[in-house]
Amino acid sequence: MEQVFEYGAILSFTENIFKEMGCSETDAATAAKALLSADLRGIDSHGVARLSGYVRLWEAKRANTKPHIRVIHETPSTAVVDGDSGLGLVVAPFAMQIAIDKAKNVGTGWVSVQHSNHFGIAGYHAMKALEHDMIGIAMTNASALVAPTFSIERLLGTNPICVAIPAGEEPAFVADLATTTAANGKLEILQRKNSTAPTGWIQDKYGKPATNPHELKSGGALLPLGGDREHGSHKGYALAAVVDIFSAVLSGANYGPWVPPFPAYVPMPENMPGKGIGHFFGAMRIDAFREALDFKKNMDQWIRRFRSAKTVEGEERVLIPGDPEREMEKERMINGIPLLQAVADDLKNLGEKFGVELISHV
Amino acid sequence: MEQVFEYGAILSFTENIFKEMGCSETDAATAAKALLSADLRGIDSHGVARLSGYVRLWEAKRANTKPHIRVIHETPSTAVVDGDSGLGLVVAPFAMQIAIDKAKNVGTGWVSVQHSNHFGIAGYHAMKALEHDMIGIAMTNASALVAPTFSIERLLGTNPICVAIPAGEEPAFVADLATTTAANGKLEILQRKNSTAPTGWIQDKYGKPATNPHELKSGGALLPLGGDREHGSHKGYALAAVVDIFSAVLSGANYGPWVPPFPAYVPMPENMPGKGIGHFFGAMRIDAFREALDFKKNMDQWIRRFRSAKTVEGEERVLIPGDPEREMEKERMINGIPLLQAVADDLKNLGEKFGVELISHV
Repeated sequence: MEQVFEYGAILSFTENIFKEMGCSETDAATAAKALLSADLRGIDSHGVARLSGYVRLWEAKRANTKPHIRVIHETPSTAVVDGDSGLGLVVAPFAMQIAIDKAKNVGTGWVSVQHSNHFGIAGYHAMKALEHDMIGIAMTNASALVAPTFSIERLLGTNPICVAIPAGEEPAFVADLATTTAANGKLEILQRKNSTAPTGWIQDKYGKPATNPHELKSGGALLPLGGDREHGSHKGYALAAVVDIFSAVLSGANYGPWVPPFPAYVPMPENMPGKGIGHFFGAMRIDAFREALDFKKNMDQWIRRFRSAKTVEGEERVLIPGDPEREMEKERMINGIPLLQAVADDLKNLGEKFGVELISHV
Repeated sequence: MEQVFEYGAILSFTENIFKEMGCSETDAATAAKALLSADLRGIDSHGVARLSGYVRLWEAKRANTKPHIRVIHETPSTAVVDGDSGLGLVVAPFAMQIAIDKAKNVGTGWVSVQHSNHFGIAGYHAMKALEHDMIGIAMTNASALVAPTFSIERLLGTNPICVAIPAGEEPAFVADLATTTAANGKLEILQRKNSTAPTGWIQDKYGKPATNPHELKSGGALLPLGGDREHGSHKGYALAAVVDIFSAVLSGANYGPWVPPFPAYVPMPENMPGKGIGHFFGAMRIDAFREALDFKKNMDQWIRRFRSAKTVEGEERVLIPGDPEREMEKERMINGIPLLQAVADDLKNLGEKFGVELISHV
């Protein structure tokens, strides 16, 4: 049920598709690399499986492949970027670079983005800061699938946050998390398998705990991290709200239930208060706080102490945020990226449509 | 079992105790106001109930009431503050003011603090930004009570995060949350009542789910927000870790299992890698991103849309983060602050020891 492709093969295929959509050489390369970082890191739901979704957004004129991305407001440590309806995969790297440049100048940089589209995984953008000895932060809002505590209405996206922190000899600490109990991608896996979801992941249209992974199709909702009030769902809700506000209310993008949907066939919300979807990026230079070498020595100690903690019986080790994704990336760079047959078929059709070939591994 | 006191009466009592401990007039007033904001906002575990704990820290020479608090490193948007072992209740307002001043100059300000002590509730410090039309952020690490996912060792504190965001006609959005499923204060309530805790709050010394609220005394641990792996505890763990690293690894304070304990009778950890406990503060000027009036208009719409969402049957309304605390503050300002008899007795003893009187409401 799976077909394996070399990373390089999917990368150049994706780049070519973006070029066929009208992206410049540079933008196509930027977008393909950002998109495929999801496949490499094992977040399959956000990678090349979404390529045809991006194409449909472009066909529906919701994504602009020749955007004039620009700064519309700034101070020494902040900026607001207008993405001109460009692919988030191109807008986000532009905005993150501004955050990094500002951090070089005044210690930190913070960029809120309006008028954008989906940017892939937050981790890719936050990790850009690492090579500059900076802490990177990335977040985005997304269309409403999540019900706040006590609500039966879906008002928030899965609104992820990533914080990437450099270490010394140890690999970086990379926390990349949706602010829901479970990412939507995990629910999609259960849908395909027709399995049930654990309680605390979703509710039905009455707001009652549900385990049918198809519940979202009939008015149900994903639940904020915590699951229910007794287990702290008001905290997951608050975090998702902060992501929404930093990404969209600070920038002038759409927020809450007004965030444009990713599937191009879903109609746009009415009376939208802003432009496109919103992101938020931050970069903090380590040596704006203390000597980077001292910081890294302490980070190494932090990481080693946690990784060597005594574990619950049956568990091999305590993981450091970013461990599983890094290991997956290493493995897939060598052995290729497995795609579900449905995804491989979808790419094949896309290739035929645009006259671009995708060569499988075997 | 409760005695009610006027806010003003507890405030001047607390101020006088801090003065008797050697604090300057200004510091005593600052510390008392910060501490009592917890009682006003209904976070009783972090308020005046801890006053005798602060006294014991001072008696054990772990808290310095005449600190030389100073900036030891800075850039236009960042600073590291050495709290000189002062009360966190005094060090934190100093550091937050620097964040605000830097935000005035360059758009945002970010301050990491070493060599401090417990600062009360994060909310009080973050909310200082609101009157300047800024977003305020406050976090702190704390001594290890929480086991990371898969660990049976306690390596993290309840490490709270507060984000305070101004609105227009609506009251501010104030998310103030421990990164655990339940705050330690809630567990203390169950301990006093001898009730059981919901699953997902704590584990026993083997890392097995537990419901006995006394489990922490025999090697158990609080659980990160999410509770277990299936419900996203790795996310709560990652958030608590970010708080720990921003507060302590960035500043040169102690982190992870090396954070000094609040109770003065608990011995200090061995081989501490830094100084005292750590905090992290941020201030972002709204108009460093966009016109403050436009932002506030959108925040009002955000808040009204969420507050008026259709609710699950039996729930009155969807709450905005900060609603319950603000309502509690209003109520207690008028009707006084109820203290458990044990707390009232403790304060009476403290008053006798220092020759300071506390007058009850009735």
